[in-house]
Amino acid sequence: MPNRSLPLYQQLAEDLAGPIRCGTLPAGTRLPSVRATARQRGVGLNTVIAAYRMLEDRGLIEARPQSGYYIRARHAMPEPLASRTQPARHAHRDQLALIDTVLDAQRLPDVIDLALACPRHAAYYPAGRLARLMASRLRRQPERIGQYALPPGSLRLRTQIARRGLALGMAPDPEALLITHGCMEALQLALRAVTQPGDTIALESPSYFNLFPLVASLGLKVVGVETDPSTGLDLAALEQVLQTRCIKAVVCMPDVQNPLGATMPVAAKRALAALAARYRTPVIEDALYAELQFDPVLPPALKAFDREGWVMRVSSFTKTLAPDFRIGWIDPGRFAEPVRRLKFASSIAESHLLQETLADMLESGGYDRHLRTLRRHYEANIHAVRTLIARHFPEGTRATRPAGGFLLWVELPEGADSIRLFEAALAEGITIMPGPLHATGGAYRHGLRLSCCAPVDARFASAIARLGVLARTCSFVQ
Amino acid sequence: MPNRSLPLYQQLAEDLAGPIRCGTLPAGTRLPSVRATARQRGVGLNTVIAAYRMLEDRGLIEARPQSGYYIRARHAMPEPLASRTQPARHAHRDQLALIDTVLDAQRLPDVIDLALACPRHAAYYPAGRLARLMASRLRRQPERIGQYALPPGSLRLRTQIARRGLALGMAPDPEALLITHGCMEALQLALRAVTQPGDTIALESPSYFNLFPLVASLGLKVVGVETDPSTGLDLAALEQVLQTRCIKAVVCMPDVQNPLGATMPVAAKRALAALAARYRTPVIEDALYAELQFDPVLPPALKAFDREGWVMRVSSFTKTLAPDFRIGWIDPGRFAEPVRRLKFASSIAESHLLQETLADMLESGGYDRHLRTLRRHYEANIHAVRTLIARHFPEGTRATRPAGGFLLWVELPEGADSIRLFEAALAEGITIMPGPLHATGGAYRHGLRLSCCAPVDARFASAIARLGVLARTCSFVQ
Repeated sequence: MPNRSLPLYQQLAEDLAGPIRCGTLPAGTRLPSVRATARQRGVGLNTVIAAYRMLEDRGLIEARPQSGYYIRARHAMPEPLASRTQPARHAHRDQLALIDTVLDAQRLPDVIDLALACPRHAAYYPAGRLARLMASRLRRQPERIGQYALPPGSLRLRTQIARRGLALGMAPDPEALLITHGCMEALQLALRAVTQPGDTIALESPSYFNLFPLVASLGLKVVGVETDPSTGLDLAALEQVLQTRCIKAVVCMPDVQNPLGATMPVAAKRALAALAARYRTPVIEDALYAELQFDPVLPPALKAFDREGWVMRVSSFTKTLAPDFRIGWIDPGRFAEPVRRLKFASSIAESHLLQETLADMLESGGYDRHLRTLRRHYEANIHAVRTLIARHFPEGTRATRPAGGFLLWVELPEGADSIRLFEAALAEGITIMPGPLHATGGAYRHGLRLSCCAPVDARFASAIARLGVLARTCSFVQ
Repeated sequence: MPNRSLPLYQQLAEDLAGPIRCGTLPAGTRLPSVRATARQRGVGLNTVIAAYRMLEDRGLIEARPQSGYYIRARHAMPEPLASRTQPARHAHRDQLALIDTVLDAQRLPDVIDLALACPRHAAYYPAGRLARLMASRLRRQPERIGQYALPPGSLRLRTQIARRGLALGMAPDPEALLITHGCMEALQLALRAVTQPGDTIALESPSYFNLFPLVASLGLKVVGVETDPSTGLDLAALEQVLQTRCIKAVVCMPDVQNPLGATMPVAAKRALAALAARYRTPVIEDALYAELQFDPVLPPALKAFDREGWVMRVSSFTKTLAPDFRIGWIDPGRFAEPVRRLKFASSIAESHLLQETLADMLESGGYDRHLRTLRRHYEANIHAVRTLIARHFPEGTRATRPAGGFLLWVELPEGADSIRLFEAALAEGITIMPGPLHATGGAYRHGLRLSCCAPVDARFASAIARLGVLARTCSFVQ
């Protein structure tokens, strides 16, 4: 039943959307012409044009040049996100307290955790094979446990990491890589190496939620940069920020951005590397999900276009191979010296045993085969959850279509409140990541991140359905 | 041959010291009275008194009340350190470069590393047993590798750590403990939790060398506090600093101070805890070597006297049980919330597999037996190296007699230069830790730290002998 308080073109769009969503009108059906619809509905041509554009924005129909509007092929999926920009300032105290609540919740018994990007479904990982490799290493070299691990880390592992870089267009020197305590420490060291408290850095908006406590702890100010759910960081917006502000570092995820899932086009990566050099501004490339892209051919990394060392690339095996090990790395570009010093003064080194076990795994082959399987699992999970969102969430809900990984970004209809939804869901043993954690200043109140890193079984599916019900009741009250 | 440019009392002291050092005058021999010596040498009474005091300071003779001066019992040991205070400001760029050189040197082939406190002699550690426990765990729970580790860490391990605290007079709540990436990260988190850039903290002088890069990276200023080689931190000096400066934290090692090896008397620990509460100043108790004390009965920890949570206690299993694992912890006192948040935003968590293996080891018993053996090894190493120093180093060299651990602090005669000694030794494949790394402002130019964490075999012994030869040639040139 269309809402009669809406403008005429929106009423018309809603009237037309109903049968499209229900599948009454199958994909590929040509819509009546603008003129015919105007005549039939008794409205002006401009009203029909505005309604058709709205349906097009929502991804329900598409214009074909010189032909007219057609119903788009869709598999009962939520609407895509529009691009947006958001202001961003300091991490708020409330934001830190909310993160505490999310983290504490994962310790509740039987919680359904859709909040944290923490792979816990061991069947997705070659845990048995890693365990056998490690046991074999322990038999051959038990004495290694009694020996102190020193930086910069296992050269065998760094050589393997460097070799894998070739497939992403890079040719890093293994000696230049430094092993870190997961990607989080690599991010921390990279930021500390190039900033001082009081400095300002630029982040994608929305960004990985844990960057905000990190930058707050380092006394940094942040500027959010418009980021497109399909093409990632908006370079025009970034350049404007670089021209008008004193930006000491840019943190971005050019491949499978967290939380949007966007991968930047190759040309944009090339342009971003050029921007970094032109403005002599360090760009921290967080490549955590780069190897989890669904496209079988991986695109080149941002670092592949970095001629002068302004790109610091950080990543980890935590999401791809061995979640428990927390072994990450950094290719520090021209900032090798401060990064190495900070690592030693912050946490010294990583376990040699864990590093050598990973090196054994990478040298013995099969990692790429494992990655192909893992991507298929995560792609299937993403597809299943998108389908469930379309079925159960309120009309007008939008969701990303990520290029890889296992995260979905969802935007509820205007007026919905993801913090209230978080609280309501938590009361029923389900956690989500509320939107305002992904930027500063309370933005994305109607957004949320869902982590699809476990198989979408009946329990998971019913949690999504329940979230859809709860989302209808959680409106934002000023 | 006494140096005739010295003041008369120093010439006299040197004259008297010769036969004592050579053993011509055995221990327990009563020296002639002050009056008799003055008469015999044709000098004034005050000159003799000053000379006797100098010999007393050097540990060669001792005063017995109402009886006179006696030659002290000594086992061909270097002279003990006098207490001292040192100014301390910022970590210097040269200091960071020098640390780089020391670290790089450990990667040279066949280097004899006497610089780093990095246990690498696996036979000292129950590596085989840990390897078997880990292999068994891998057989039973391989899937754990495929599961993300989350803070605050294994409750089984935290429970074991809490139980061990009972022997040190503490009764920590396992839930309050947070597992960290070794003691270094625990120190880092503790400092960041209670300071802002620009703040001033108080450190023992000399201190653990890696604190200086850490505090420099955090933008902190430091004040060095006089520290006695036998009784540790001078509380009167500390209180004066607390009264006159705005000190945001005190970092100290009440048990087996690095590098001096001092353990504070129990009464001093009690007084320090009271000071922390009175001045509402966080005290970071670095307990890294507390369980490596040679005395079979361990004294209570500083934290045992902490009623109001001002003491943050940090430690690790890196020196005591599993050097490769880098598993440490923090008992954060009243600063639990900021420490927990910083850990998550800095490096998330530690490997569950490593934590559970340690918990298996601690639960299955035998850790105390291992510690007893380990202490005997390190005590023997310390004794051997002290003997070698007395034999080979220049006359006037002083050395600590540590209460535990495997570190010796050595002071060469005035005018000697430990940075030049470091360079000369490095050219011969031997590394030491030069004195100026242990404070700011270039103090301790004639000091050095030696790490005795490997058995003192012929190669080690000849390195010490060679250092003694080189020390004679490395004088300080202004």
